[in-house]
Amino acid sequence: MTTSDDLKKGGPVVDMSGSPCCTLMPVSVNAVQITDAFWWPRILANREVTIPSQLEHCRKTGRIDNFRRASGKINGDFQGIYFNDSDVYKWAEAASWSLASFSDPHLDAELDSVISEVVAAQEADGYLNTYFTFERKPDRFKNLKDMHEIYCAGHLFQAASAHFRATGKRSLLDAAYRLADHLYEIFGPGKRVGACGHEEAEMGLVELYRIDGDRRYLDLARLMIEARGRKPSILGGSPYHQDHAPFTEQKEMIGHAVRHMYLCCGAADVVAETGDSGYLLALDALWTNFTQRKMYVTGGAGSRWEGEAFGADYELPNERAYTETCAAIGSVMWNWRMLQLTGLPQFADVMELALYNAVLPGLSLDGTRYFYQNPLADRGTHRREEWFGCACCPPNVARLLASLSGYFYSTSPDGIYVHLYATSSARIELQSGVTIALRQETDYPWSGDVTITVDSAPGEVFSVFLRIPFWANEDEAMLFVNGVDATDALHGEPGRNRALRRNWKAGDVIRLVLPMPVEVIESHSRVSSNHGRVALQRGPLVYCVEQSDHSSADAWDLALPEDTDFKLDRLEIDGHAVIALKADAVASQTEDRQETLYAPYHGTDEKEFIGAAITAIPYYAWANREAGPMQVWLPVKRDG
Amino acid sequence: MTTSDDLKKGGPVVDMSGSPCCTLMPVSVNAVQITDAFWWPRILANREVTIPSQLEHCRKTGRIDNFRRASGKINGDFQGIYFNDSDVYKWAEAASWSLASFSDPHLDAELDSVISEVVAAQEADGYLNTYFTFERKPDRFKNLKDMHEIYCAGHLFQAASAHFRATGKRSLLDAAYRLADHLYEIFGPGKRVGACGHEEAEMGLVELYRIDGDRRYLDLARLMIEARGRKPSILGGSPYHQDHAPFTEQKEMIGHAVRHMYLCCGAADVVAETGDSGYLLALDALWTNFTQRKMYVTGGAGSRWEGEAFGADYELPNERAYTETCAAIGSVMWNWRMLQLTGLPQFADVMELALYNAVLPGLSLDGTRYFYQNPLADRGTHRREEWFGCACCPPNVARLLASLSGYFYSTSPDGIYVHLYATSSARIELQSGVTIALRQETDYPWSGDVTITVDSAPGEVFSVFLRIPFWANEDEAMLFVNGVDATDALHGEPGRNRALRRNWKAGDVIRLVLPMPVEVIESHSRVSSNHGRVALQRGPLVYCVEQSDHSSADAWDLALPEDTDFKLDRLEIDGHAVIALKADAVASQTEDRQETLYAPYHGTDEKEFIGAAITAIPYYAWANREAGPMQVWLPVKRDG
Repeated sequence: MTTSDDLKKGGPVVDMSGSPCCTLMPVSVNAVQITDAFWWPRILANREVTIPSQLEHCRKTGRIDNFRRASGKINGDFQGIYFNDSDVYKWAEAASWSLASFSDPHLDAELDSVISEVVAAQEADGYLNTYFTFERKPDRFKNLKDMHEIYCAGHLFQAASAHFRATGKRSLLDAAYRLADHLYEIFGPGKRVGACGHEEAEMGLVELYRIDGDRRYLDLARLMIEARGRKPSILGGSPYHQDHAPFTEQKEMIGHAVRHMYLCCGAADVVAETGDSGYLLALDALWTNFTQRKMYVTGGAGSRWEGEAFGADYELPNERAYTETCAAIGSVMWNWRMLQLTGLPQFADVMELALYNAVLPGLSLDGTRYFYQNPLADRGTHRREEWFGCACCPPNVARLLASLSGYFYSTSPDGIYVHLYATSSARIELQSGVTIALRQETDYPWSGDVTITVDSAPGEVFSVFLRIPFWANEDEAMLFVNGVDATDALHGEPGRNRALRRNWKAGDVIRLVLPMPVEVIESHSRVSSNHGRVALQRGPLVYCVEQSDHSSADAWDLALPEDTDFKLDRLEIDGHAVIALKADAVASQTEDRQETLYAPYHGTDEKEFIGAAITAIPYYAWANREAGPMQVWLPVKRDG
Repeated sequence: MTTSDDLKKGGPVVDMSGSPCCTLMPVSVNAVQITDAFWWPRILANREVTIPSQLEHCRKTGRIDNFRRASGKINGDFQGIYFNDSDVYKWAEAASWSLASFSDPHLDAELDSVISEVVAAQEADGYLNTYFTFERKPDRFKNLKDMHEIYCAGHLFQAASAHFRATGKRSLLDAAYRLADHLYEIFGPGKRVGACGHEEAEMGLVELYRIDGDRRYLDLARLMIEARGRKPSILGGSPYHQDHAPFTEQKEMIGHAVRHMYLCCGAADVVAETGDSGYLLALDALWTNFTQRKMYVTGGAGSRWEGEAFGADYELPNERAYTETCAAIGSVMWNWRMLQLTGLPQFADVMELALYNAVLPGLSLDGTRYFYQNPLADRGTHRREEWFGCACCPPNVARLLASLSGYFYSTSPDGIYVHLYATSSARIELQSGVTIALRQETDYPWSGDVTITVDSAPGEVFSVFLRIPFWANEDEAMLFVNGVDATDALHGEPGRNRALRRNWKAGDVIRLVLPMPVEVIESHSRVSSNHGRVALQRGPLVYCVEQSDHSSADAWDLALPEDTDFKLDRLEIDGHAVIALKADAVASQTEDRQETLYAPYHGTDEKEFIGAAITAIPYYAWANREAGPMQVWLPVKRDG
């Protein structure tokens, strides 16, 4: 039987379990076993294909050799980009989370071997960054704005925390503390004011604080946040680096999208430990700006290629969407922290949206190829690649998938929060100290019919808090407990989870039925890219049309009549089953206009359209077949 | 009386008058005096405000001092960006063209003074670039891809040619030949293969060839074009530098927009001298790609901020349009050369479109502030600036405005070609050697009613070739010669100019009447940015709506019902009179949706619109009043 200690081993993705200012407490990644048909094959591919192949890429591209060079084991030049250490750390984090859930002696040994190379490269004073060795040693911490030194350290801190929690080993953790101590000596209170041009270390430092309780690391994280937006500036003063204003005065998601997401993660971590209300208000303003002005319908973030950056309010181009996979992962990480801070389902909603529609597209269905950018429309030229020179996204996806089970539940003094739905089993320690076992059975995300069975319970009164996802119509949802209608419990204060409170016993069954119609979505009228267009969503999934399913028309010519009826149809894409949306729609005729870019407006004329059977597939599954046009936002063909 | 030699002094903008493979022969910039209400105030402001203030900016920002430093007159560091010499050369070209048309002893002296600084900075071997002096001398021609050395030389060649033609002085020209000879020694036949990452020198070299007939300069221009797209590459092989393929294999406008435009100018110049059919076919393919896939409705070029680059086919974002002023000027320059090569009015059409709607917006109405980028939609944040660190655009506009009179006419063995319309007078030497004087009277671009009066003529049979602009409906146009209907002459082979051939005598009057209705324009359906939107054009002018004229609705909420009737109304913008388009239209109501980025589609509902009086102004005139939203492409509100 799993003991309380076993449950804690593995640990939460972000260990806010002892954070004094959190509403919720996370559960360990190995407390939940996902066994469904949707996520489980992805998690398995992550473990069997993605993680091993990423280590091979790290080896082939000199990322491991850089550590061997730094420790004097080999000669030669530093290989690749100056921030490449971070990819190794992110891979180590992914491997660690995988080991938290799955025993894998081979991976454990590989990880130990990588860690030994990392540790060997650390200098006596704790410094660790393979780029700034030998001839570049004099340049250490000279260019904080550009050189990602502290960023790399942050990824080491996160990897080390994960490794320690997953395996109980301190090999990487001790190195992390040595480096953190070194940073503290340089950038600690009363010393040099400094932070990295690319945020990341802030959240890593808070994680180190959470493990050993040494407040220096928390203080350093806060100092690094406070280092931004100073006059005179220490990072150049640009919005690109979120250095245009102090964090507490930031109201708009701006500049490099991943950086701003990571900054918000770090600030949320500080709030969790300190309750800083200035930070919390800024996070609230930033989240509101993001979700009401700058978030793609997929949950993706970052509108501009130049600067990998957020755009202006409502600037959400489709074909040239940047929507870096890492930015969506940053959104998941930030929203997860906001969820633990507040318990509010709006954060789980945005997290789920990004997870299915902005993170998952970043990885091919077979787990071997990656998107860096995730456009919402394409002519067939944007394809996933096996690796990148700047390879931040691949191991970022891997670490998220490997720790996905940690995002399903939290606890509060009142009971258990259910954030995500998938067939899975879980053993969760309540805050009273007793453990309950429960199971989810559902075809989510294809169906909103979810059964939660209590397999063992201590005979204690507690609540099960259910998230009614943003996409569901609460008025049409149904809820049953042990077959008895409990739908009334669904009607409560808007924006809150729905609680079922009772003395739960083994065999108790909750059934939540969320109808999942096809939703036709429009944008705010200021989103000029989507003018006269609609997107299709069903449940948590955003859909797209891809050329592979359309032989008689270009996928960019497909349009939706206003009163389109959809049929659900099962489709296989690279061996992966999806529910497609099919309809009789139309295609505009463009062939006769090939030579005219501009022409007199003639209104919308019936004869410009022909009937076209339309098949929409989940956006996450696009670009897994032959290359061709794809679009998420379909033009509407108005009646009459 | 002006003699034939006087007419030649000033010279054509691009001296294709002796080019063996041109259909047309340009006329001198000082052969035409523009006196209208539209251009003349701009030309005057260019001469009185823009050109003097640009010299001040060059002085204040160290651009002149860089030459003084290079010649050892002063100490200190090089100031600004490594290509800043080019701004001084472009200013010198602008000043030269201004002197060609207007006697101005003060400007002449200022120019001589600048030239003396330039010449003093030239080294004994002919090398001239103030960045690569002293400590950077060893780096000369080491990094052709990035450092703009040969680009700067090209601007010297153009400035020197203009200065020589305008003033007869050889001071700058001799320096240009010394530098060209130096380049020939390094990059000439059988020597090092080289070209600049930023094209420009090619056309400058051909101009030097045209002045003294020394074929080495033409050969070097061609070698530089041939240096692109080689395997192995000498410029990195990227489309950004048009180095992905040999010029003759290029079919798509790609990469940095100004660079590709300038490359096409250089190639067209080579065609003019050599008749190279490979180059001509490539130019034709590139022009077709530009005008059918990548040109903004304004004639602007360059869709992407990243790389200041062309986008994919049909990728024409509005708010994030880059549309650099220099790229539009590049299009004017390229189309001018194509027009001389072929005599075909399609090139004058694109040139005119860019001139009014993509170049002119780059300069404030008062001649003091500049746009680098020219978006077609804006929230009020994009404003003209007095100068830029990278100041390519300001003197580029100045040199074009100063030489505008040179773009109005050409001659052929058959007679005179009229490319542009504006109230003006001209003395033009026919290819037979005789001179005719003529006058245009018109309110163009506000009216399409143009009267051309022959003031003196030699009593010789020749043709007057009239361009019927692309925006005019030939079937509704009228033509009269001495009051007698000659409309039949308007009906001829599509895509050709219309010829009036007779023994023209003093007092003969041609009247061309082109109705100028408001045109509602749509894009090709693949231009997703303009889906469901229309633009307004009247005559050669593209219109926009700007917040200044709309108090009851946000300019981005304005929409056009399908059957909108427009009234013309005179409006003053910063003292400049325009004809505005007024109509009863609608505004969508967005206020109730401020907090919802995505919502279920509800169709187009009447109550979402309110009536709104709409006022459209010429796009070139935007951003001359208080900052506010602006858009060119207006949503269509369909009936019913």
